[in-house]
Amino acid sequence: MTQTYQAQVYVTLRPSVLDPAGTAAQSGLAQLGFEGVDRLRIGKYIELTVEAADEAAASEQLDAMCDRLLANTTIENYRFELTAIDPAGAAS
Amino acid sequence: MTQTYQAQVYVTLRPSVLDPAGTAAQSGLAQLGFEGVDRLRIGKYIELTVEAADEAAASEQLDAMCDRLLANTTIENYRFELTAIDPAGAAS
Repeated sequence: MTQTYQAQVYVTLRPSVLDPAGTAAQSGLAQLGFEGVDRLRIGKYIELTVEAADEAAASEQLDAMCDRLLANTTIENYRFELTAIDPAGAAS
Repeated sequence: MTQTYQAQVYVTLRPSVLDPAGTAAQSGLAQLGFEGVDRLRIGKYIELTVEAADEAAASEQLDAMCDRLLANTTIENYRFELTAIDPAGAAS
């Protein structure tokens, strides 16, 4: 029997990679009068559910999904969190 | 004296809003052979630092930044977390 896991995946640009969208957002905030904002970087936040035998298997699947499609590991880092849920979607 | 806060902002599409990029990523994962993936949604994950007198002031600023620029509240929800850091960037 498989268990459903809710995954939260955070994909961020590597520190050495320029982030023009983040720079534009930071400039926009400054132009709107927000002071003291710095180091703004924009990444992706992906939510999904996955079925797996156990948390180790789910974690292995997520690593593979991130490496192959969800993140571009040449320029991006990723990390994820897993929570077991019942199939209806509530945390169990 | 002001305190520097590290903010993590999560911007997600409202549940009623279609997410074509998320649907495409979910199809892509299925085509790559990943089974049991569902409810994939893609949002934004924004990191920034902000200076404020205290956490309440930082939180108020973040709310205003999200409402005015970082999120489109017609179609997106947002939430954020704040952590006090020393100016060099480490959690204090």
